[in-house]
Amino acid sequence: MKKTIIFGLGILSLSLSTVAQSIKSPNGQLEFAFEIKDGKPSYKLNYKDKAVVRNSRLGLTLKDAPALLEGFEVKKQETKSVNENWNPVLGEFKTIKNNYNELAVTLRQAKEDREILVRFRVFNDGLGFRYEFPQQKNLNYFVIAEEETQFALSGDNKAWWIAGDYDTEEYNYVTSKLSEVPARFKEGYEQNVSQTVIPNGLQTPLMMKSQDGLYINLHEAALMDYAAMNVELDSKNFVLKTHLTPDAQGAKGYMQTPCQSPWRTIVVSDKATDILASKLILNLNEPCKLPTTDWIKPVKYVGVWWQMFCPNQGSWSYADVDNIHLGVTDYKKLTPNKTHAANNKNVKKYIDFAAKHGFDAVLVEGWNEGWEDWFGHSKEFVFDFVTPYPDFNVKELNEYAQSKGVRIIMHHETSASATNYERWMDTAYKFMVNHGYKAVKSGYVGNIIPRGEHHYSQWMVKHYHRAFTRAADYKLMVNAHETVHLTGMHRTYPNYIAAEAARGTEYETFSGVNPEHTTILPFTRLMGGPMDYTPGIFQTQFNYYKSDDTRFIKTTLVKQLALYVTMYSPLQMAADIIDNYERFPDAFQFIKDVAVDWDDTKIIEAEPGDYITIARKAKGKEDWFVGGITDENPRTAKFDFSFLDDKATYVATIYADGADAHYVTKPQSYAIRKVLVTKKSKLTQKLAASGGFAISLKKATAEDLKTIKAKL
Amino acid sequence: MKKTIIFGLGILSLSLSTVAQSIKSPNGQLEFAFEIKDGKPSYKLNYKDKAVVRNSRLGLTLKDAPALLEGFEVKKQETKSVNENWNPVLGEFKTIKNNYNELAVTLRQAKEDREILVRFRVFNDGLGFRYEFPQQKNLNYFVIAEEETQFALSGDNKAWWIAGDYDTEEYNYVTSKLSEVPARFKEGYEQNVSQTVIPNGLQTPLMMKSQDGLYINLHEAALMDYAAMNVELDSKNFVLKTHLTPDAQGAKGYMQTPCQSPWRTIVVSDKATDILASKLILNLNEPCKLPTTDWIKPVKYVGVWWQMFCPNQGSWSYADVDNIHLGVTDYKKLTPNKTHAANNKNVKKYIDFAAKHGFDAVLVEGWNEGWEDWFGHSKEFVFDFVTPYPDFNVKELNEYAQSKGVRIIMHHETSASATNYERWMDTAYKFMVNHGYKAVKSGYVGNIIPRGEHHYSQWMVKHYHRAFTRAADYKLMVNAHETVHLTGMHRTYPNYIAAEAARGTEYETFSGVNPEHTTILPFTRLMGGPMDYTPGIFQTQFNYYKSDDTRFIKTTLVKQLALYVTMYSPLQMAADIIDNYERFPDAFQFIKDVAVDWDDTKIIEAEPGDYITIARKAKGKEDWFVGGITDENPRTAKFDFSFLDDKATYVATIYADGADAHYVTKPQSYAIRKVLVTKKSKLTQKLAASGGFAISLKKATAEDLKTIKAKL
Repeated sequence: MKKTIIFGLGILSLSLSTVAQSIKSPNGQLEFAFEIKDGKPSYKLNYKDKAVVRNSRLGLTLKDAPALLEGFEVKKQETKSVNENWNPVLGEFKTIKNNYNELAVTLRQAKEDREILVRFRVFNDGLGFRYEFPQQKNLNYFVIAEEETQFALSGDNKAWWIAGDYDTEEYNYVTSKLSEVPARFKEGYEQNVSQTVIPNGLQTPLMMKSQDGLYINLHEAALMDYAAMNVELDSKNFVLKTHLTPDAQGAKGYMQTPCQSPWRTIVVSDKATDILASKLILNLNEPCKLPTTDWIKPVKYVGVWWQMFCPNQGSWSYADVDNIHLGVTDYKKLTPNKTHAANNKNVKKYIDFAAKHGFDAVLVEGWNEGWEDWFGHSKEFVFDFVTPYPDFNVKELNEYAQSKGVRIIMHHETSASATNYERWMDTAYKFMVNHGYKAVKSGYVGNIIPRGEHHYSQWMVKHYHRAFTRAADYKLMVNAHETVHLTGMHRTYPNYIAAEAARGTEYETFSGVNPEHTTILPFTRLMGGPMDYTPGIFQTQFNYYKSDDTRFIKTTLVKQLALYVTMYSPLQMAADIIDNYERFPDAFQFIKDVAVDWDDTKIIEAEPGDYITIARKAKGKEDWFVGGITDENPRTAKFDFSFLDDKATYVATIYADGADAHYVTKPQSYAIRKVLVTKKSKLTQKLAASGGFAISLKKATAEDLKTIKAKL
Repeated sequence: MKKTIIFGLGILSLSLSTVAQSIKSPNGQLEFAFEIKDGKPSYKLNYKDKAVVRNSRLGLTLKDAPALLEGFEVKKQETKSVNENWNPVLGEFKTIKNNYNELAVTLRQAKEDREILVRFRVFNDGLGFRYEFPQQKNLNYFVIAEEETQFALSGDNKAWWIAGDYDTEEYNYVTSKLSEVPARFKEGYEQNVSQTVIPNGLQTPLMMKSQDGLYINLHEAALMDYAAMNVELDSKNFVLKTHLTPDAQGAKGYMQTPCQSPWRTIVVSDKATDILASKLILNLNEPCKLPTTDWIKPVKYVGVWWQMFCPNQGSWSYADVDNIHLGVTDYKKLTPNKTHAANNKNVKKYIDFAAKHGFDAVLVEGWNEGWEDWFGHSKEFVFDFVTPYPDFNVKELNEYAQSKGVRIIMHHETSASATNYERWMDTAYKFMVNHGYKAVKSGYVGNIIPRGEHHYSQWMVKHYHRAFTRAADYKLMVNAHETVHLTGMHRTYPNYIAAEAARGTEYETFSGVNPEHTTILPFTRLMGGPMDYTPGIFQTQFNYYKSDDTRFIKTTLVKQLALYVTMYSPLQMAADIIDNYERFPDAFQFIKDVAVDWDDTKIIEAEPGDYITIARKAKGKEDWFVGGITDENPRTAKFDFSFLDDKATYVATIYADGADAHYVTKPQSYAIRKVLVTKKSKLTQKLAASGGFAISLKKATAEDLKTIKAKL
């Protein structure tokens, strides 16, 4: 690991009425300035001499204590430069460069005899800064009333946004100017089983494009022991301000020094592709804290899951009753509903399928007692995570799976009853270890217990942290659904392999997902970390299952393939049911082939809300995979293969929308062709409305060169 | 066990506009009537033809669902009579009679197609009733908005009351007519570290005396999975109404059928002594549910505790710092404050003292890391319950204690961080088992975490239940402080050996305890179960420790002895520090001799707020003990010893206030005499202001008859 750190020490005990200090990014393109004027600290950020953030205030208000907003003087300024490389356990790149110039300003509030420190790091791709609260006589414990950090934007940016909320980010995105947000606010959310919409609030990661062409992404990094951030919009002045998630009593954080806020992150570039390539958020997280990581492996999986969303294909519950007392209700005496999907026979079918096609694992939802009344009752003792239904043989199925080189993925739906989950957590993890499970999908559907807490409040942020760090003690990987947004914590705890925390494929079966959704998610939700989006739906129209069911997944079949490349995650599901894959074995081949962990990534082209094309090189291999997607508009992608090896010729298998493909009328129209390509090849590829393309590239064998004649 | 149960079946499908049904107590002195009029159910209660409760409404309101208040018709009425005896594991009596007539009314709400059942039990000493919610199509889950049970009193009763609260009952009592409550409400509470006063609210057990001379006690029994009750007072109409404790969101109970409310209890008599003798609340609790009880033993103990309340005598904390991170702060590097009381040397001194004087156990508070900043910060990870301070050797001290036949009592101060306690509970209990601890004193000082929950809310009621039932799994006894009021649960879970849940002796060192306090507590707090009041303070004046400290315990020394008899608990502390007992060895002899578990109890005389005299017979022995106390007024107790064995002569050792004794000026003035008494003896005994007397009675030996000449 190359590592260069240069320290500098600034001026001590400054007490002029205005003090300013500026630093630049290593490449000089970003210029950041800190200022203190009349005791009030602020900052601003320029990119190539264009304003990204105008002068913006810093500070916090506290409960029952004077604010940390004004009356400050600069006590100390320190600068530092870092240029180092590090290797993620799983990721989009083999090596990530962490290169920044840092300014650490110690602010003294003389009247209260208190000090805080604001640490700024300027990277080539953006700015990160956080508040640090040293232990001191007059600041041991404090309660945050609100964080008052401003992001004063340069103008009426275009934004890809969802409504601010304390409990869910499972919304479709709205694209509008900031000034248009108030009028269109109601488009930014819809009914959810747990939600607390923030008036004038927007969620982060928030993707924006300025009127002078800068792409700006706002989020937070290393959210550990703090309430998650939304931003409040002043749509007249284009100022955003942090809005933390309160607890049941309105408090926004219980702090004990020494401690710090998460990093506030601003990723910026004049190229949209740079936003997707940015690893700034990961760089602001701590290095891996796990003592060993050899048990953390990428996972491609199938599962007993999607069928429960399809009409007449199965249920989570075992019996059609509506009142279960765990440990009291005797399931052997209930009448089975005959639709329970997590039964021995069906699970074995999935294990066989996974083994045959090279998948690592099979997720099984609905395996345990309690699904009959798990939902909507604020029921605390809703699951025990260790008691299977009568038709699910834990021991037999795990042994069967392992005999075929496959693992079952455990499922812990908590029903948002976090107190209950904490009571059972150790028992549940030990149960997993005893039966050979390696990974768990957890879920937090519904309103949180402790009642009054929120999915994004500090207590829950700590709960998720407790869950995945405790899982690490048992060498278990966690894929958490309905949690707070990710903030790059998988650098530090790579066993937190993926999360949902956005509107995923399942919403296609509820109120729908916009065709542009997956062209936005990499610019928003995925900035924080991998998403278990569950792509791979081949049978998009639900009238296939039930003639009068008009629902359909707003995608072509091929776009579903492309998502394995465009939606980064080291844990990827082939979500559709077995029969549908068996109907399209040639298209399914791409899912079988595609990697989920990478040595390199090239963001070829991208515009939020419109299109994305990405190429990735499989971890430890010479194979490349390319995925391209578009929104509801057809388009033609044009790009070259300059990312390939200098001298090699590759066989490209190109999975393309058929000429008549359309996500509404002809989603399953596709064409597959094999061609030879080199570094110099260029491709012009049509994508259907909400379509895509996917390419697998393998170095050509002598045989290939003989048999494949087509070239690009 | 004698058991007689007679069933009766009432009339089916009644739908008259008014239906009434009345039943009497087994002795015919109480008459209870249920009525339904215009769909609204109500009840009333008479005692010897005097009204105790006038016609009073029944029912509940629900959140987001129609109320269970009206539109009812009687579907079924069943009557039953029970007369049985049972034996408590620990208690005031060897055998308790459970004798009642029952009326169970099934109420049908046709419009909602719902049913509830109200079960009434009329005993000779009062009424108990509860709501039962059967599982049914239209009532599986519901959330209580409020319970609307009324207690319409017959007039302007005198009451001994404290202000209603969701978090604490650590108040001095006010004695007033109900009509005077509003004007005097502020006397009914004072500042507490966690409190939420209910306007017009009064706490139960509420003791009252009607204008026609009836003593009436209102409370609840078998509070298991429900919010605790306060009552709201309509001081114009003398109507009390249930007021349940809300959670953080204002909900008052999350219910899943089948389920029930606690019992609402009205104990009534024209003799105050009958109130203290009543076991109605115990009778309404379920029989013991523990598989074994041979490990549940009465405990008389001393402890490293009171000295921390005395000036300059010691501290809980080890170091004088104000910011501890458990598991991070290295105590070995902190400077000890030299006042830490739970050190090896001091604990051994207490073990030696306990062994020498026949005590069962030594409580040690402040043994574990975290006391430096445990308080007032809403700190969640405040203690881990397993990490001792550097100067407390867990293994050595436990082995030392056990070698002397003594056990150390564990201390778990949770700081009201219940979520943290639940995380550590199993670890903490296992730690106790591993080191030979048999009992734990737990504490809940401060505002509850989960934040917004209350000490009396349903979640916390279930938490306490979880704590003592889990302790039972490890065969551990629990003595819980700062919890919800007791409701007779120690019948069902006798390992829940005692609790505080009222203003105990420690308050003498804060803002003081009224001299009458201990003449009221048996009529209020103790109706629900044993209290760890921690009597036995011999050194009542604090200028003994520090010349300018004017605080004093408002009691004579002898009154402290009497409390061991008047304040029933199978767990009793001799709370004072060793030196003070060594200064008064003759008086200390009573504490050494007195039993804490009993075969029989006679309430000799009593008037709430004025005086109490009780005689009790030691479990499995012929020894009797008598205790008498008075309020701030001196008095003369006159009673006979008719409770004694017919033919035996006893040696009575009488511990009396000295002639000049006074709780302010001469608290330590006392006289001890030995006399012979028989069943026919009569005693006239003076009690000083806030004084008392204590008598131990042993069957006289031949030697006694020779040497003791004095007789009563």
